[in-house]
Amino acid sequence: MRCDVVAVGTELLLGQIVDTNSAWIGQQLAAGGIDSLLQTKVGDNRSRIVSALSDALRHADAVICCGGLGPTQDDITRESIAELMGVALERDIAMVATIRAMFDRRGRVMPESNQRQADKPVGASFIINERGTAPGLICPIGDKVLYAVPGVPHEMQAMVDQVILPDLVRRSGETAVIASRVLRTWGAAESAIAEMVAPRLEALDAPGAPAATIAFLASGIEGIKVRVTAKAPTRSAVDAILDVEEQHLRGILGDLVFGLDDDSMERVVARRLTELGLTLAVAESLTGGLVSSRLVGVPGASGWFRGGVVSYASQVKFDLLGVPEGPVVSAATAIAMAVGVRDRLRADVGLGVTGVAGPDEQEGRPVGTVFLGLAVPGTPPEAVEIRLPGDREQVRQFATIGLLDQLRRRLG
Amino acid sequence: MRCDVVAVGTELLLGQIVDTNSAWIGQQLAAGGIDSLLQTKVGDNRSRIVSALSDALRHADAVICCGGLGPTQDDITRESIAELMGVALERDIAMVATIRAMFDRRGRVMPESNQRQADKPVGASFIINERGTAPGLICPIGDKVLYAVPGVPHEMQAMVDQVILPDLVRRSGETAVIASRVLRTWGAAESAIAEMVAPRLEALDAPGAPAATIAFLASGIEGIKVRVTAKAPTRSAVDAILDVEEQHLRGILGDLVFGLDDDSMERVVARRLTELGLTLAVAESLTGGLVSSRLVGVPGASGWFRGGVVSYASQVKFDLLGVPEGPVVSAATAIAMAVGVRDRLRADVGLGVTGVAGPDEQEGRPVGTVFLGLAVPGTPPEAVEIRLPGDREQVRQFATIGLLDQLRRRLG
Repeated sequence: MRCDVVAVGTELLLGQIVDTNSAWIGQQLAAGGIDSLLQTKVGDNRSRIVSALSDALRHADAVICCGGLGPTQDDITRESIAELMGVALERDIAMVATIRAMFDRRGRVMPESNQRQADKPVGASFIINERGTAPGLICPIGDKVLYAVPGVPHEMQAMVDQVILPDLVRRSGETAVIASRVLRTWGAAESAIAEMVAPRLEALDAPGAPAATIAFLASGIEGIKVRVTAKAPTRSAVDAILDVEEQHLRGILGDLVFGLDDDSMERVVARRLTELGLTLAVAESLTGGLVSSRLVGVPGASGWFRGGVVSYASQVKFDLLGVPEGPVVSAATAIAMAVGVRDRLRADVGLGVTGVAGPDEQEGRPVGTVFLGLAVPGTPPEAVEIRLPGDREQVRQFATIGLLDQLRRRLG
Repeated sequence: MRCDVVAVGTELLLGQIVDTNSAWIGQQLAAGGIDSLLQTKVGDNRSRIVSALSDALRHADAVICCGGLGPTQDDITRESIAELMGVALERDIAMVATIRAMFDRRGRVMPESNQRQADKPVGASFIINERGTAPGLICPIGDKVLYAVPGVPHEMQAMVDQVILPDLVRRSGETAVIASRVLRTWGAAESAIAEMVAPRLEALDAPGAPAATIAFLASGIEGIKVRVTAKAPTRSAVDAILDVEEQHLRGILGDLVFGLDDDSMERVVARRLTELGLTLAVAESLTGGLVSSRLVGVPGASGWFRGGVVSYASQVKFDLLGVPEGPVVSAATAIAMAVGVRDRLRADVGLGVTGVAGPDEQEGRPVGTVFLGLAVPGTPPEAVEIRLPGDREQVRQFATIGLLDQLRRRLG
C-alpha cells in the first residue's frame, strides 16, 4: 500500500510557512506500515493542483491532499478535485447548517463565503471536522482514493488519526497488526542514543529475531524519541514483542527514558506529584513563565500547581521572593528562589531558575549559563549548574525542560 | 523563469526530519522574482530520484536538487543525475585533494568513502563548498539547468546565495525588482478580512492598475497576514507601489493592523512601552505564564518588563495580589490582579487575566470565558470580557495574544 502526499498552498512554495504537515503524515503512515514515496508541494493554482493530484494517483494507491479547504477564493482544492473526478461540486445543506451552528456557538455570524466549505464533489463523502469549519473529503477515484484535509495542523491530525489511517489499513487488506511504542528520552544526543542502541538494532537484524524495528526521531528541545514498531498476527502478539523491546531499551537507556508515547515531561512530573500528594510552585527569571505555562498546560493542574513568580527584574527577586541582594546569576540565588516561592505560595515543592539567555553576558557569566534550584521535601535545597547551547530562545526552552527533568529525576 | 525544487532523503518522507530547505529556497527564489511552482520530496531510491528530477525538468526551466551528496552508499544523487544526463561519473582528482586537505586542516584522516564526493557527471561543474566536504553541481541539460546542493542547511544556503541565485537571475534576463510587504493583523478571521479587502483586490485586477498583488496568510493564533507584492523596474518604484498599497490597506483594516513584516504582538508592545518609558508587570491565571514568557522572549525585555505573578490557585491571588476573596472568574478579579501586580512589582502598567481554559466549567462560567484586566496610566483600571473558541491550549493561547492586543490598542 502506497499513499503519497500533496500539500497545497502558495505560501508553502514561497517558504512563508514550512510544510510540517507532510512530515507528520509521513510519520503516521510509516508507523502504520504504509509506504509514502513522493510528497509534493503545489501552489493555489487549479491546473497545477489537478496535475499534481493526477500524477500522484498514477503512482500511489492513495493520496492525502492537505490544505486549500478554507473559505476564500484562494482555496480551490474542492474545485480541483471535482475537475480531476470529472464531476460537479454540490453544496450540502446539512453541512452549511453545521458550519453555521459552529459560528453561532462562538457568538459570531458566519460570513457567506464559509458556505463554500460545504461543497463536495458528487460521489465524495465528508470527514467531520470537530475542531474547525472545513470538513475533509474522501473521494473514490477508480479503485484508488483521494483524501482532502485542511492545512490547519490540529484539524488535519485529528482526521488522519481517526478516519484516514484506519481506512487505509482496511483498504490495504493488511491483516497483520502493526503497532508502535515510543520511548521518550531527554538528556542525550541522537548520535549517543544510536550508539547505545546499536547492539540491539543488530540483534533485531539477525535471522529469527522478533519482527520489530527501531527508529530514532529527534524532537527538538523535547528530546529524542526511540520508536519500536512491531508486526504480528494479533494485537496481543504485537504487544508482547513491544513489551520485550521496551524492557531491552529501558535496560540500555536507564533514566534517560522519562515516559512513553504521548507523555510530555510536564505530564510525567504532574503524575508523580499527584501520586505523592505534593503541590508545586515555581520562580522563574530567564525562562519568564515558560516553566509555569507548560505545567498549567496539563489538565487538572489546579490539583497540584499553586502558581509562580516571574522575577525578571532583580528587585522582584529581592522583594517578592526574599532573595538576598547581590548578584543573581548564581547557585545561591536559584536555591533562594526555589525556597522563597515554595514558602510564599505555601507549596510542598519549590523550583527556581536563573541564568543568562543572551544576547549579552551578565555578571561576567557567558550566555547559556543556567542555575536550576530545587527545594524538594526530604533533601536539602540544592542547585544544578548547566551550560546550554543556542540562541536566546533555545537557552530559555532548554532551561525549562532541563528544570522539569531535574524535578522528575528527584521525584523517582 | 521557473525553478522547482526536489529534496532527496527517505528521512524526509518518514517525517524524521522536516524539510525546511525547500521553504528556505522558496523564499530566496521569490525574493529574486523567480517562480517555484512545484516542490517535491523523494526518498533515497535511484529510479524514483531520476523520475522526480526528470518530471521537474519537464515543467521548469531550472531545478535545485537538495540532499544525497554525502559520502555513504545511501547518497546517490550524483549517480541519479548522471543517469538522467545519460553520461558517466568521473572522479575529479583535484577535488579529491581539496576534500582531503579539508580533513587535514581539521586534524582528521579522510575516510576513503569521501572520495565519492569528488565524482561528477561528465559535462557538469562543481560548486565549491566552503563549509563542508560535499561540493555542489551545476549540470546543463539541454537549454535547462539542474543544480545539486547538500542537504546540510548552512552549506546549501551558502551555495544558493552565492552561486545559484545569481546564475538564475542572469539566465532569466529579469531586470525588474520584486518585493513584498506584510501587514500583520489580529482580531478578525481570514474570511472577514478577505471580504473587507475584496474591493481593493478587484481594483488591482483592472487594466492600468499598479503591478501589485495581495494575498492572505493565516498564521494560527498569530492572526492573518496580508501580503502585498509589487514589481517595477527599480527598487524605489517598487517601494512607492508598496507604500500606496499599505496606505489603502491601513485605511480599510484600521487598527486590526498591529505591525509590519517581522513584527510580533509582543515586539510592538515592547516598542511602545520603550517609547513611552513605561514598565510592565503581569498577573496570570489560566494563561499560567504564557503572557510573561512571550514578553521575555523580546531581547532587551529587562528595560521595561518587571516580572509577573502566576496566581493559578485562588489563594495565591488573595495572598500575593490582594484580590478580594470570592469568585475569581470575574471582571473585578481581572482588574484587582492588574492593579495588584502593578503595585507589588512597582510597575507603571499592570495586566491581569483570569478565565476558564477547560476542560471543565468553573464558577458556573463556560469554557472559553476570559476576563482581561488593564491598569494603564491615564485611564481608570478596566476589564474586557471575551469568549474564546477551542480547547484548553487554544483558549490559553488566544487569551495571551488577546491581552497583549488590548494593551497595544491602549498604548496607541
